Amino acid sequence: VNGTALYLEDLVPGAEYTAPQWPVAEADVIRFGQEFDPQPFHVDAAAAAQSLFGGLAASGWHTSAMMMGMATRSELNIVNGIIGLGVEALRFPRAVRPGDTLRLLMQILEVRRSGSTPSHGIVKCRWQAFNQHGELVAEMLPRLWVQARQTSAGEPAKESTDVPA
Amino acid sequence: VNGTALYLEDLVPGAEYTAPQWPVAEADVIRFGQEFDPQPFHVDAAAAAQSLFGGLAASGWHTSAMMMGMATRSELNIVNGIIGLGVEALRFPRAVRPGDTLRLLMQILEVRRSGSTPSHGIVKCRWQAFNQHGELVAEMLPRLWVQARQTSAGEPAKESTDVPA
Repeated sequence: VNGTALYLEDLVPGAEYTAPQWPVAEADVIRFGQEFDPQPFHVDAAAAAQSLFGGLAASGWHTSAMMMGMATRSELNIVNGIIGLGVEALRFPRAVRPGDTLRLLMQILEVRRSGSTPSHGIVKCRWQAFNQHGELVAEMLPRLWVQARQTSAGEPAKESTDVPA
Repeated sequence: VNGTALYLEDLVPGAEYTAPQWPVAEADVIRFGQEFDPQPFHVDAAAAAQSLFGGLAASGWHTSAMMMGMATRSELNIVNGIIGLGVEALRFPRAVRPGDTLRLLMQILEVRRSGSTPSHGIVKCRWQAFNQHGELVAEMLPRLWVQARQTSAGEPAKESTDVPA
Protein backbone atom coordinates (compact mmCIF):
# COMPACT_ATOMS: atom_id res chain seq x y z
CA VAL A 1 0.00 0.00 0.00
CA ASN A 2 1.45 3.31 -1.11
CA GLY A 3 0.70 6.94 -0.41
CA THR A 4 -2.02 8.79 1.43
CA ALA A 5 -5.29 6.98 2.03
CA LEU A 6 -7.91 7.75 -0.62
CA TYR A 7 -11.53 8.65 0.17
CA LEU A 8 -14.54 8.59 -2.13
CA GLU A 9 -14.00 12.27 -2.98
CA ASP A 10 -10.47 11.50 -4.21
CA LEU A 11 -11.55 8.96 -6.83
CA VAL A 12 -12.36 10.53 -10.20
CA PRO A 13 -13.58 8.84 -13.37
CA GLY A 14 -10.70 8.37 -15.78
CA ALA A 15 -8.01 8.24 -13.11
CA GLU A 16 -5.59 5.32 -13.45
CA TYR A 17 -3.63 3.44 -10.82
CA THR A 18 -0.80 0.97 -11.24
CA ALA A 19 0.79 -1.65 -9.01
CA PRO A 20 4.04 -3.57 -8.60
CA GLN A 21 4.39 -6.34 -11.17
CA TRP A 22 3.75 -9.98 -10.23
CA PRO A 23 5.92 -12.86 -11.50
CA VAL A 24 4.07 -16.11 -12.24
CA ALA A 25 6.12 -19.06 -10.98
CA GLU A 26 5.38 -22.54 -12.30
CA ALA A 27 5.38 -23.93 -8.77
CA ASP A 28 2.70 -21.42 -7.76
CA VAL A 29 0.55 -22.25 -10.80
CA ILE A 30 0.68 -25.96 -9.93
CA ARG A 31 0.15 -25.42 -6.18
CA PHE A 32 -2.91 -23.20 -6.73
CA GLY A 33 -4.23 -25.66 -9.29
CA GLN A 34 -3.82 -28.64 -7.00
CA GLU A 35 -5.80 -26.94 -4.25
CA PHE A 36 -8.56 -25.21 -6.20
CA ASP A 37 -8.58 -26.26 -9.87
CA PRO A 38 -6.88 -29.65 -10.30
CA GLN A 39 -7.41 -30.01 -14.04
CA PRO A 40 -4.53 -31.38 -16.16
CA PHE A 41 -3.82 -28.07 -17.92
CA HIS A 42 -3.21 -26.38 -14.53
CA VAL A 43 -1.23 -29.07 -12.67
CA ASP A 44 0.55 -31.44 -15.08
CA ALA A 45 2.93 -30.04 -17.71
CA ALA A 46 2.96 -33.19 -19.87
CA ALA A 47 -0.83 -33.55 -19.89
CA ALA A 48 -1.21 -29.79 -20.39
CA ALA A 49 0.87 -29.99 -23.58
CA GLN A 50 -1.77 -32.36 -25.02
CA SER A 51 -4.71 -30.18 -23.92
CA LEU A 52 -6.36 -27.31 -25.74
CA PHE A 53 -4.08 -24.95 -23.76
CA GLY A 54 -0.97 -26.50 -25.35
CA GLY A 55 0.92 -26.21 -22.07
CA LEU A 56 0.54 -25.29 -18.42
CA ALA A 57 -1.72 -22.31 -17.80
CA ALA A 58 -2.75 -20.61 -14.58
CA SER A 59 -6.31 -21.14 -13.38
CA GLY A 60 -8.43 -18.07 -14.09
CA TRP A 61 -9.10 -17.91 -10.34
CA HIS A 62 -5.37 -17.82 -9.72
CA THR A 63 -5.05 -14.97 -12.20
CA SER A 64 -7.91 -13.14 -10.48
CA ALA A 65 -6.25 -13.66 -7.10
CA MET A 66 -2.94 -12.36 -8.47
CA MET A 67 -4.73 -9.25 -9.71
CA MET A 68 -6.09 -8.72 -6.20
CA GLY A 69 -2.61 -9.32 -4.83
CA MET A 70 -1.27 -6.54 -7.04
CA ALA A 71 -4.20 -4.23 -6.22
CA THR A 72 -3.66 -4.54 -2.46
CA ARG A 73 -0.02 -3.49 -2.95
CA SER A 74 -0.84 -0.67 -5.38
CA GLU A 75 -1.32 3.10 -5.43
CA LEU A 76 -5.07 2.52 -5.00
CA ASN A 77 -4.82 2.90 -1.22
CA ILE A 78 -8.50 3.20 -0.26
CA VAL A 79 -9.09 4.26 3.34
CA ASN A 80 -11.29 1.33 4.35
CA GLY A 81 -9.50 -1.14 2.09
CA ILE A 82 -10.36 -2.62 -1.29
CA ILE A 83 -13.80 -4.05 -0.55
CA GLY A 84 -15.46 -5.59 -3.56
CA LEU A 85 -19.25 -5.69 -3.77
CA GLY A 86 -19.20 -7.65 -6.99
CA VAL A 87 -17.60 -8.05 -10.38
CA GLU A 88 -18.98 -7.86 -13.91
CA ALA A 89 -17.48 -8.97 -17.20
CA LEU A 90 -14.66 -11.10 -15.84
CA ARG A 91 -12.87 -12.68 -18.80
CA PHE A 92 -9.58 -14.30 -19.68
CA PRO A 93 -8.73 -13.53 -23.32
CA ARG A 94 -5.29 -15.17 -23.21
CA ALA A 95 -3.64 -17.90 -21.13
CA VAL A 96 -1.33 -16.93 -18.26
CA ARG A 97 1.82 -19.04 -18.47
CA PRO A 98 4.51 -19.97 -15.94
CA GLY A 99 7.32 -17.47 -16.40
CA ASP A 100 4.99 -14.62 -17.30
CA THR A 101 5.17 -11.34 -15.39
CA LEU A 102 1.81 -9.67 -14.88
CA ARG A 103 1.10 -5.96 -14.73
CA LEU A 104 -2.15 -4.47 -13.41
CA LEU A 105 -3.89 -1.33 -14.66
CA MET A 106 -6.84 -0.02 -12.64
CA GLN A 107 -9.07 2.69 -14.06
CA ILE A 108 -11.94 4.49 -12.32
CA LEU A 109 -15.10 4.37 -14.46
CA GLU A 110 -17.93 5.69 -12.25
CA VAL A 111 -18.27 7.14 -8.75
CA ARG A 112 -21.60 7.49 -7.01
CA ARG A 113 -22.69 8.21 -3.45
CA SER A 114 -24.70 5.49 -1.73
CA GLY A 115 -28.34 6.51 -1.31
CA SER A 116 -28.92 4.43 1.81
CA THR A 117 -25.49 5.01 3.40
CA PRO A 118 -24.39 8.59 2.57
CA SER A 119 -21.06 8.09 4.36
CA HIS A 120 -19.97 5.76 1.56
CA GLY A 121 -20.13 5.32 -2.16
CA ILE A 122 -19.79 2.75 -4.91
CA VAL A 123 -16.90 3.01 -7.35
CA LYS A 124 -16.99 1.06 -10.58
CA CYS A 125 -13.54 0.26 -11.99
CA ARG A 126 -11.91 -1.55 -14.87
CA TRP A 127 -9.02 -3.78 -13.88
CA GLN A 128 -6.83 -5.19 -16.64
CA ALA A 129 -3.91 -7.58 -16.37
CA PHE A 130 -1.24 -7.65 -19.07
CA ASN A 131 1.67 -10.02 -19.57
CA GLN A 132 5.26 -8.99 -20.29
CA HIS A 133 4.43 -8.74 -24.02
CA GLY A 134 1.73 -6.16 -23.29
CA GLU A 135 -1.01 -8.66 -24.15
CA LEU A 136 -4.27 -8.48 -22.20
CA VAL A 137 -4.70 -11.71 -20.19
CA ALA A 138 -7.59 -10.81 -17.89
CA GLU A 139 -10.13 -8.07 -17.44
CA MET A 140 -12.91 -7.36 -14.96
CA LEU A 141 -15.23 -4.57 -13.85
CA PRO A 142 -15.28 -4.58 -10.01
CA ARG A 143 -17.55 -2.40 -7.87
CA LEU A 144 -15.85 -1.16 -4.71
CA TRP A 145 -17.37 0.11 -1.44
CA VAL A 146 -15.51 3.30 -0.48
CA GLN A 147 -15.76 5.51 2.58
CA ALA A 148 -16.33 9.24 1.99
CA ARG A 149 -14.46 12.03 3.77
CA GLN A 150 -17.74 13.84 4.34
CA THR A 151 -21.34 12.73 4.13
CA SER A 152 -23.47 14.14 1.35
CA ALA A 153 -24.79 16.60 4.00
CA GLY A 154 -21.24 17.85 4.59
CA GLU A 155 -20.69 16.17 7.97
CA PRO A 156 -17.60 14.12 8.71
CA ALA A 157 -18.28 10.54 7.60
CA LYS A 158 -17.85 7.68 10.03
CA GLU A 159 -17.13 4.16 8.97
CA SER A 160 -20.35 2.27 8.44
CA THR A 161 -20.78 -1.41 9.13
CA ASP A 162 -23.55 -1.62 6.54
CA VAL A 163 -22.20 -3.17 3.38
CA PRO A 164 -24.78 -3.38 0.61
CA ALA A 165 -24.98 -6.80 -1.01
CA VAL B 1 -14.81 -35.91 -10.78
CA ASN B 2 -17.75 -38.30 -10.77
CA GLY B 3 -19.62 -40.29 -13.37
CA THR B 4 -19.53 -40.48 -17.14
CA ALA B 5 -18.01 -37.55 -19.02
CA LEU B 6 -20.59 -35.03 -20.19
CA TYR B 7 -20.70 -33.56 -23.71
CA LEU B 8 -22.52 -30.48 -24.92
CA GLU B 9 -25.55 -32.58 -25.91
CA ASP B 10 -25.86 -33.85 -22.31
CA LEU B 11 -26.22 -30.39 -20.76
CA VAL B 12 -29.81 -29.19 -20.63
CA PRO B 13 -31.17 -25.87 -19.33
CA GLY B 14 -32.59 -26.34 -15.85
CA ALA B 15 -30.38 -29.30 -14.94
CA GLU B 16 -28.67 -29.00 -11.56
CA TYR B 17 -25.39 -30.43 -10.34
CA THR B 18 -24.01 -30.63 -6.82
CA ALA B 19 -20.55 -31.17 -5.36
CA PRO B 20 -18.88 -32.37 -2.17
CA GLN B 21 -19.00 -29.74 0.58
CA TRP B 22 -15.94 -27.64 1.41
CA PRO B 23 -14.95 -26.75 4.99
CA VAL B 24 -13.44 -23.29 5.47
CA ALA B 25 -10.50 -23.49 7.88
CA GLU B 26 -9.24 -20.33 9.57
CA ALA B 27 -5.65 -21.22 8.66
CA ASP B 28 -6.64 -21.41 4.99
CA VAL B 29 -8.46 -18.06 5.11
CA ILE B 30 -5.37 -16.39 6.58
CA ARG B 31 -2.91 -18.16 4.27
CA PHE B 32 -4.87 -17.20 1.13
CA GLY B 33 -5.26 -13.67 2.45
CA GLN B 34 -1.56 -13.27 3.17
CA GLU B 35 -0.66 -14.31 -0.38
CA PHE B 36 -3.35 -12.58 -2.43
CA ASP B 37 -5.45 -10.20 -0.30
CA PRO B 38 -3.50 -9.11 2.80
CA GLN B 39 -6.12 -6.76 4.24
CA PRO B 40 -6.73 -6.82 8.01
CA PHE B 41 -10.20 -8.39 7.75
CA HIS B 42 -8.72 -11.39 5.90
CA VAL B 43 -5.51 -11.99 7.84
CA ASP B 44 -5.72 -10.61 11.40
CA ALA B 45 -8.54 -11.74 13.71
CA ALA B 46 -8.13 -8.86 16.19
CA ALA B 47 -8.03 -6.17 13.51
CA ALA B 48 -10.88 -7.89 11.64
CA ALA B 49 -13.10 -7.62 14.74
CA GLN B 50 -12.73 -3.82 14.51
CA SER B 51 -13.41 -3.70 10.74
CA LEU B 52 -16.71 -3.45 8.94
CA PHE B 53 -16.68 -7.26 8.64
CA GLY B 54 -16.77 -7.61 12.44
CA GLY B 55 -14.41 -10.58 12.30
CA LEU B 56 -12.25 -12.62 9.95
CA ALA B 57 -13.81 -13.20 6.54
CA ALA B 58 -12.51 -15.08 3.51
CA SER B 59 -11.37 -13.01 0.52
CA GLY B 60 -13.98 -13.10 -2.24
CA TRP B 61 -11.27 -14.54 -4.48
CA HIS B 62 -10.72 -17.33 -1.98
CA THR B 63 -14.47 -18.03 -1.99
CA SER B 64 -14.46 -18.05 -5.81
CA ALA B 65 -11.51 -20.44 -5.79
CA MET B 66 -13.27 -22.73 -3.30
CA MET B 67 -16.32 -22.78 -5.61
CA MET B 68 -14.04 -23.88 -8.45
CA GLY B 69 -12.50 -26.47 -6.12
CA MET B 70 -15.94 -27.91 -5.46
CA ALA B 71 -16.92 -27.75 -9.16
CA THR B 72 -13.86 -29.72 -10.27
CA ARG B 73 -14.78 -32.47 -7.80
CA SER B 74 -18.49 -32.44 -8.68
CA GLU B 75 -21.01 -34.31 -10.82
CA LEU B 76 -20.42 -31.72 -13.58
CA ASN B 77 -17.78 -33.90 -15.25
CA ILE B 78 -17.38 -32.15 -18.60
CA VAL B 79 -15.37 -34.12 -21.17
CA ASN B 80 -12.77 -31.44 -21.88
CA GLY B 81 -12.81 -30.06 -18.34
CA ILE B 82 -14.43 -27.02 -16.77
CA ILE B 83 -13.05 -24.29 -19.01
CA GLY B 84 -14.39 -20.85 -18.19
CA LEU B 85 -14.59 -18.23 -20.92
CA GLY B 86 -15.76 -15.58 -18.52
CA VAL B 87 -18.01 -14.76 -15.61
CA GLU B 88 -20.86 -12.28 -15.18
CA ALA B 89 -22.57 -11.05 -12.04
CA LEU B 90 -20.05 -12.29 -9.50
CA ARG B 91 -21.20 -11.11 -6.08
CA PHE B 92 -20.71 -11.88 -2.42
CA PRO B 93 -23.94 -11.16 -0.51
CA ARG B 94 -22.67 -12.48 2.83
CA ALA B 95 -19.27 -12.95 4.46
CA VAL B 96 -17.65 -16.40 4.46
CA ARG B 97 -16.32 -17.14 7.95
CA PRO B 98 -13.71 -19.53 9.31
CA GLY B 99 -15.60 -22.61 10.44
CA ASP B 100 -18.21 -22.34 7.70
CA THR B 101 -18.90 -25.29 5.44
CA LEU B 102 -19.72 -24.33 1.85
CA ARG B 103 -22.06 -26.11 -0.52
CA LEU B 104 -22.14 -25.50 -4.29
CA LEU B 105 -25.19 -25.62 -6.55
CA MET B 106 -24.61 -25.42 -10.30
CA GLN B 107 -27.52 -24.88 -12.66
CA ILE B 108 -27.47 -24.90 -16.47
CA LEU B 109 -29.12 -21.75 -17.85
CA GLU B 110 -28.39 -21.72 -21.60
CA VAL B 111 -26.70 -24.02 -24.11
CA ARG B 112 -25.71 -22.90 -27.59
CA ARG B 113 -23.53 -24.28 -30.34
CA SER B 114 -20.52 -22.21 -31.33
CA GLY B 115 -20.98 -20.61 -34.74
CA SER B 116 -17.28 -20.52 -35.59
CA THR B 117 -16.34 -23.86 -33.98
CA PRO B 118 -19.25 -26.30 -34.49
CA SER B 119 -17.47 -29.03 -32.51
CA HIS B 120 -18.05 -27.01 -29.33
CA GLY B 121 -20.59 -24.88 -27.58
CA ILE B 122 -20.98 -22.28 -24.87
CA VAL B 123 -22.90 -23.17 -21.72
CA LYS B 124 -24.08 -20.42 -19.42
CA CYS B 125 -24.51 -21.52 -15.80
CA ARG B 126 -25.47 -20.14 -12.41
CA TRP B 127 -23.17 -21.21 -9.60
CA GLN B 128 -24.26 -20.48 -6.05
CA ALA B 129 -22.39 -21.13 -2.81
CA PHE B 130 -24.32 -21.54 0.45
CA ASN B 131 -23.05 -21.79 4.00
CA GLN B 132 -24.15 -24.40 6.54
CA HIS B 133 -27.16 -22.25 7.46
CA GLY B 134 -28.39 -22.33 3.86
CA GLU B 135 -27.49 -18.66 3.36
CA LEU B 136 -26.24 -17.55 -0.06
CA VAL B 137 -22.64 -16.34 0.28
CA ALA B 138 -21.56 -16.09 -3.37
CA GLU B 139 -23.09 -16.25 -6.80
CA MET B 140 -21.77 -16.03 -10.34
CA LEU B 141 -22.83 -16.70 -13.94
CA PRO B 142 -19.93 -18.49 -15.68
CA ARG B 143 -19.78 -19.30 -19.39
CA LEU B 144 -18.15 -22.66 -20.10
CA TRP B 145 -16.55 -23.97 -23.30
CA VAL B 146 -17.85 -27.51 -23.86
CA GLN B 147 -16.98 -30.12 -26.47
CA ALA B 148 -19.88 -31.66 -28.41
CA ARG B 149 -20.27 -35.37 -29.13
CA GLN B 150 -21.13 -34.58 -32.73
CA THR B 151 -20.65 -31.47 -34.83
CA SER B 152 -23.75 -29.57 -35.89
CA ALA B 153 -23.39 -31.44 -39.24
CA GLY B 154 -23.65 -34.78 -37.41
CA GLU B 155 -19.97 -35.75 -37.67
CA PRO B 156 -17.97 -36.90 -34.66
CA ALA B 157 -16.52 -33.83 -32.97
CA LYS B 158 -12.80 -33.58 -32.35
CA GLU B 159 -11.28 -31.46 -29.66
CA SER B 160 -10.55 -28.00 -30.97
CA THR B 161 -7.65 -25.89 -29.83
CA ASP B 162 -9.55 -22.73 -30.68
CA VAL B 163 -10.90 -21.18 -27.52
CA PRO B 164 -12.95 -18.08 -28.16
CA ALA B 165 -12.00 -15.13 -26.02
